Amino acid sequence: MIIPFLTPDLRPELDLRVEKVRKAMQVAGLKAILVSSTANILYLSGCIFRGYIFLSVEDGPLFITIPPSVTEASSDTVTLHKPELIPGMLQERGMTLPEVIGLEYNDMFYNEVERLKGAFAGCGFSNASPILMEARMIKTPYEIEKMKEDGEHHVAAYSRIESCYWPGMTDIELQIEVERVLRREGCLGYLRVAGSRMEINMGSVIAGDNADMPSPYDFSMGGAGADPSLPVGADGTELRNGMSVMLDMNGGFNGYQTDMTRTWYVGSLPDLAFRAHDCSLKILHELEYEARPGMPLSDMYRRSMEIVKSEGLEDYFMGHRNHVKFIGHGVGIQLNEQPVIMERTKAVLTENMTLAIEPKFVVPGVGALGIENTYRVGADGLENLTPMDESLKELKK
Amino acid sequence: MIIPFLTPDLRPELDLRVEKVRKAMQVAGLKAILVSSTANILYLSGCIFRGYIFLSVEDGPLFITIPPSVTEASSDTVTLHKPELIPGMLQERGMTLPEVIGLEYNDMFYNEVERLKGAFAGCGFSNASPILMEARMIKTPYEIEKMKEDGEHHVAAYSRIESCYWPGMTDIELQIEVERVLRREGCLGYLRVAGSRMEINMGSVIAGDNADMPSPYDFSMGGAGADPSLPVGADGTELRNGMSVMLDMNGGFNGYQTDMTRTWYVGSLPDLAFRAHDCSLKILHELEYEARPGMPLSDMYRRSMEIVKSEGLEDYFMGHRNHVKFIGHGVGIQLNEQPVIMERTKAVLTENMTLAIEPKFVVPGVGALGIENTYRVGADGLENLTPMDESLKELKK
Repeated sequence: MIIPFLTPDLRPELDLRVEKVRKAMQVAGLKAILVSSTANILYLSGCIFRGYIFLSVEDGPLFITIPPSVTEASSDTVTLHKPELIPGMLQERGMTLPEVIGLEYNDMFYNEVERLKGAFAGCGFSNASPILMEARMIKTPYEIEKMKEDGEHHVAAYSRIESCYWPGMTDIELQIEVERVLRREGCLGYLRVAGSRMEINMGSVIAGDNADMPSPYDFSMGGAGADPSLPVGADGTELRNGMSVMLDMNGGFNGYQTDMTRTWYVGSLPDLAFRAHDCSLKILHELEYEARPGMPLSDMYRRSMEIVKSEGLEDYFMGHRNHVKFIGHGVGIQLNEQPVIMERTKAVLTENMTLAIEPKFVVPGVGALGIENTYRVGADGLENLTPMDESLKELKK
Repeated sequence: MIIPFLTPDLRPELDLRVEKVRKAMQVAGLKAILVSSTANILYLSGCIFRGYIFLSVEDGPLFITIPPSVTEASSDTVTLHKPELIPGMLQERGMTLPEVIGLEYNDMFYNEVERLKGAFAGCGFSNASPILMEARMIKTPYEIEKMKEDGEHHVAAYSRIESCYWPGMTDIELQIEVERVLRREGCLGYLRVAGSRMEINMGSVIAGDNADMPSPYDFSMGGAGADPSLPVGADGTELRNGMSVMLDMNGGFNGYQTDMTRTWYVGSLPDLAFRAHDCSLKILHELEYEARPGMPLSDMYRRSMEIVKSEGLEDYFMGHRNHVKFIGHGVGIQLNEQPVIMERTKAVLTENMTLAIEPKFVVPGVGALGIENTYRVGADGLENLTPMDESLKELKK
């Protein structure tokens, strides 16, 4: 595989990202990192290859490919057969071996990190993952464009969801039809998530009381799933009168992702369901209007809780039997990036953060209510990257 | 989430698995392990939950759930709020803290393992992953039944592939239709793989010269993929006269997986393509007949290479521009389990191993040829769990 990176048009963009990573390295007092996780390789090269990226405050980025990934020889690429050859190669190229090297403790298996530690005998080591999370948290203009493009496809696919419905179908049957619509719209069909405990197929469709089944994964809503080996999302519930049907399906079309939820219902729902749904919209619209660079994310969480309490809906907010303690999260290359919108977050809103905000409710006997949009943090508020009718809509044929 | 494990009917099965793991622990000289990866939690409990399983040669298994996963109190379950409480809890229950504890170095992120090491201050540590791989390598009768059931669904879905075709469609369009067929047959839509560098959607469809694009992942065949962020499989090639079309799609229906490939073509192919395909079948049929418990896997690899060379097809075997050095692998809960069928393997065939064998060829200008079946190693040869017409078949409407 000849690596197609460093195409002239992508070069300035990658330079910008390297600059952001170097700034985060300086703040952390770290002089060199060796990156190898797929998400961070993608961030720093624009593609996924097998190998490593070495970056120090003065040298690199040096793209080190391991076969079958190879690259044409150039001043910033090299192909090696194993990571143990990296230190010798750096010295041959006249680079100083770092005293301390950052490795991705949050993104690589224990034995992979230990192997690299063995290769860099005599060096000290530190965790590079927070540095890369920090850099990736604020998107470049190019990344924002990719995510907007992503949101457009996501909305285009969601606008066809109602045509997927037939009376008597199950939540799984609906999900399968929506997966096909998403894939035909260009969705790559792979959800790139951070963390070893996040497993899901192309997304989540939750109908009726299945909404109240907490999952062992870190998703906002649960669902029992179709099998004990994948206990999340749709469980085969037949869509019936009086049920809400929440769709939170994969929006990854181009290496970036948007996260988007809309909710439908069958037949008729009690007033409480509409009140909960309206409360979700009220939270989002207030945050859209009030959010400004500089605002602590913990304030967004607190403001949401105030609105929920003023409506008397706290029993249903972010779950009913089990309440999740966040209302949103960063999103980009991975579905679950930094920061997390929760009470304890120290993070502050910054221009060009991209946030999925998902104030959701679970009403027993009805199901999940509310929506989720992906936003760019702008100077004057939040810019919605997934604009589409937000109302609670009826599914009918 | 109330964990539904330890149902009376599953209990004897789990006891059998625990016995196998304990045997592997004894061989490795390890007295206790703490398991946390999703695949090994699934193996030892029959479901996925958030938490840990503690197992020592004399105590356990003790199922430790972390909320939102909870379980009804019993003598072999406990719910804790963080892993740091595990050692104290073990002592309270009168269990001896192990001198050395095995953790899953190949299956958990570095920071997760480090956190557990911190919790068990004063203990020594060792890698538990090989022990669990070893135990899982030989399936129980119950697991074989699950995989047979899986193979039946896999075959049922594959028998409908030809109805998915329309002239002028692309490889991606074909894949999308086949995904829907698989999902409607009950496929869970999630490919559980081992290793941090294995990313794919629901499988691989490879048409024409896209077969010769090596991927950075550890799959037998490559393919450029639809985007640099997921460089594997279908790349949008229009299916045209003279092309082979190989389908290697997800067969995970019940927590286990079968791995199965069949190949079609459009229009007509040169003789070389049919010769390569026939050679794949010849290799499989010889191995099916000759394989016996006790045979070294390296002999299977060597015998395959002999057949390939006697047909003069070594330039095309397991890739053309890039040759992969294995012809098959274990399969079960994860798609890529132990052992690997390659020249250097030390493993020996054992009854109730389950192996995916995939002797494949890449012919330039044509595409990928050959098939893949999943087998159980039986006393008298290999039992095919994915029996279905193996010929090179024409796609037509």
